[in-house]
Amino acid sequence: MDQRDRKTKEKLVNLAKAVVHDVNDGTDPSVDIPLRSLSNVTFNEQSSIIELGDQKSERQFFNVRHTRKFMQTFLVAAACKELIEQGKTTSIRDLFYMTWRDIAGSKTKTFDGQEESDPVIEDLEVAIQALREELHLFASNRGAMVGPMTIVDSGDTIDLRRMGSGGWSVPSIVESNVLQFKKTEAEFVLLVEKDAVWRRLNEDKFWKAHKCMVIHGNGMAPRGVRRLVYRMHYELGLPVYVLVDNDPWGLYIYSVVKQGSINLAFESARMAVPRARFLGLSSSDPEAFGLSSDVGLKLGDQDVKRAQQMLNYAWFQEKKWQQEIRTLLRSGRRYELEAFSQKGISFITEEYLPRKIKDELWLV
Amino acid sequence: MDQRDRKTKEKLVNLAKAVVHDVNDGTDPSVDIPLRSLSNVTFNEQSSIIELGDQKSERQFFNVRHTRKFMQTFLVAAACKELIEQGKTTSIRDLFYMTWRDIAGSKTKTFDGQEESDPVIEDLEVAIQALREELHLFASNRGAMVGPMTIVDSGDTIDLRRMGSGGWSVPSIVESNVLQFKKTEAEFVLLVEKDAVWRRLNEDKFWKAHKCMVIHGNGMAPRGVRRLVYRMHYELGLPVYVLVDNDPWGLYIYSVVKQGSINLAFESARMAVPRARFLGLSSSDPEAFGLSSDVGLKLGDQDVKRAQQMLNYAWFQEKKWQQEIRTLLRSGRRYELEAFSQKGISFITEEYLPRKIKDELWLV
Repeated sequence: MDQRDRKTKEKLVNLAKAVVHDVNDGTDPSVDIPLRSLSNVTFNEQSSIIELGDQKSERQFFNVRHTRKFMQTFLVAAACKELIEQGKTTSIRDLFYMTWRDIAGSKTKTFDGQEESDPVIEDLEVAIQALREELHLFASNRGAMVGPMTIVDSGDTIDLRRMGSGGWSVPSIVESNVLQFKKTEAEFVLLVEKDAVWRRLNEDKFWKAHKCMVIHGNGMAPRGVRRLVYRMHYELGLPVYVLVDNDPWGLYIYSVVKQGSINLAFESARMAVPRARFLGLSSSDPEAFGLSSDVGLKLGDQDVKRAQQMLNYAWFQEKKWQQEIRTLLRSGRRYELEAFSQKGISFITEEYLPRKIKDELWLV
Repeated sequence: MDQRDRKTKEKLVNLAKAVVHDVNDGTDPSVDIPLRSLSNVTFNEQSSIIELGDQKSERQFFNVRHTRKFMQTFLVAAACKELIEQGKTTSIRDLFYMTWRDIAGSKTKTFDGQEESDPVIEDLEVAIQALREELHLFASNRGAMVGPMTIVDSGDTIDLRRMGSGGWSVPSIVESNVLQFKKTEAEFVLLVEKDAVWRRLNEDKFWKAHKCMVIHGNGMAPRGVRRLVYRMHYELGLPVYVLVDNDPWGLYIYSVVKQGSINLAFESARMAVPRARFLGLSSSDPEAFGLSSDVGLKLGDQDVKRAQQMLNYAWFQEKKWQQEIRTLLRSGRRYELEAFSQKGISFITEEYLPRKIKDELWLV
């Protein structure tokens, strides 16, 4: 067991010890769980990330409204301890099954479904300040990466320069005890929203010509991809560029990479990259790069609603962002990255990206 | 341009030449498109795959009901020819943008949306008998593989024994001009439905102990995964085992791997593996392996309906299959692979799979 695992296990054990202590003391046993509601989420202007506040709720064993959740918290904690001790990782679905059973002497189950166990995992994460990955739980395996870098993943040395057309599938757990960076010539990281664009860049060997890591998350970047981008940014000092569709969903993906998400505010400090650069597709790009409005799709009601919400985000208050979002709304159109195909199969690799990067046409 | 590309290009050119010939002859130009409707799909008992029949429809240029589709067919064909000539591949979304524009002198667009261009691609595939991959179009990039095999993908030599926890991301195009098999010690292929199970098997190095390729498709196996499994089966002579949830959806995934899908019957001959073995999760497994009915989920109405449809599939008429499906229906419960977690984190790797394979507890 490495040091990090030992530390996480210790936190889990201490959580239980405190309860045993309460019992021995004759006090009502309880655990403090930081509140994960919107009221306890703030945008830290200085660090520029979304953070969880100080509000906590007490989960008491002798309170009928808390008993079930109290029991569930320790069931999940015990299962995570077992995973750490065995040196294994598992999915949150598996964890649900590990802890799902009839409560002895009753017809009641420990959980009504995974909907009930997932929030308890998040409670535990905030309560002991350990990322899900440190509890040996993985999320979905999504996204791929290529580029001029050698890594070690679970003991295997992998040359990401020689990954063929498929690329290296980014796992959900990329903590430093599992994954280490070795030799690299990469000068920046390019995170693209779409698998299809990633493939274009890989086929054209964009990463070779421009010395960069090219990574995608197949839509919203999953935890593994975000954490890996974070590590490359802070540990290797690589600037991060984000390339998404020109629509509110693309902006939202960028926003999560940059500031973290509201739902999982407690993770921002270890996931968010506030200096990530929004490379495009910007609202001004269709005109700047001669995309005809023919290839723009109409903004739907949901798009408009989401864009209007974003106008109110604390981190999009600067004039440049307000302008970016207002231009999108005013045009009434959204542009997908694939729209560049109309200008040539490799227009995005050979014209668009090089010019955007060279002329520093990005927003932060 | 390699031989296969030359051949596909020739087919595209010949399609156009035939029309030019019609024009010069003073005949009404037309193309024959094999019918892709259910009425033209049959189950070939001998080859044991779903096949497209002989019915064709004539697409005529001077028929107002056909003109638009006629034009679209050649727009798509021309774009594919361009892709082949440039040695590039692209997504069907990109192809849509490549061919989407205002028709000169009108306000009408060449396509109303991708919903209109996708079927035209399928028409073209059947018309010239070329897989989508041969037209240089890719589908989504989904799934991963590890195991004792070295491959060459787009010129890069990749050792699938050393892929860490992430694995090699299976690309959508795995034709022999792109991907070649080199040294392997694999004795079989294990195709698993779920990413989470694949990770369990990879973490436990199941592929090392049992000398097999472990591949997943993140749900329904995408084209790249199916084609790769097909190639490993026929070119390397490896038996294929399929591991899915015990529910009608799992059975359906198996059915598509085995016989092909009804929608894309024309591809079966190059995708389907009729001898693929249904390893589990079988309806008898919960009892055989001591899974308590506690961890079974109730079958929904949709599940029941789909299972009843499957009872009528020509390829599930044998007694063993009827029994398998009826047992599922009778139990009223479905079991996910993750349910084994209740019996131990690695029960599936250490107990379940070895016994199923050793005792030949599969269905074909």
